[in-house]
Amino acid sequence: MIDELVEIRVIAGQETAFVAAVKQAKPLFLAAKGCHGLRLTRSIEVPDLFRLLVRWETVEDHMVGFRNSDAFGEWRRLAGPHFAKPPHVEHLETMIAE
Amino acid sequence: MIDELVEIRVIAGQETAFVAAVKQAKPLFLAAKGCHGLRLTRSIEVPDLFRLLVRWETVEDHMVGFRNSDAFGEWRRLAGPHFAKPPHVEHLETMIAE
Repeated sequence: MIDELVEIRVIAGQETAFVAAVKQAKPLFLAAKGCHGLRLTRSIEVPDLFRLLVRWETVEDHMVGFRNSDAFGEWRRLAGPHFAKPPHVEHLETMIAE
Repeated sequence: MIDELVEIRVIAGQETAFVAAVKQAKPLFLAAKGCHGLRLTRSIEVPDLFRLLVRWETVEDHMVGFRNSDAFGEWRRLAGPHFAKPPHVEHLETMIAE
């Protein structure tokens, strides 16, 4: 299991609309093959900086399966208009669990 | 509840020793007032980039309580020698939960 980490800068004033869009898009992720959950955080120090964490069975489930699906286009259609710039994407493996 | 996020660049070749140091330091966090868990991730794309996520009841539990405790000094004594540069710290609030 790995986490997709997406760092998203949101256009000032559109934070509430962005969170609503992620809520609307959440079922698209949860229905995708290999997806095991989604969390959205907001930075307290940098309030336009959001981080989306999506848990996948494999990197391929995200980068091949999801990215090439209609659900990805729908996710970008919902959330993309609120992005201040292209988001930064990484994948994380857990070394020490909670 | 909030998450402390620490982005840590580890000196090349010291990744295994760093993870061992965080494992050793984990009880220091878990014993601290207001601490509810700790997770360490490693970036797949940037293998010297680790992220420590510590769950606290409040930002003050981290920035005042923990930072001024002996446990913080012990944490830095264990993990600090492996830092390639000063870590970046933010605090995150959860907007959408898993």
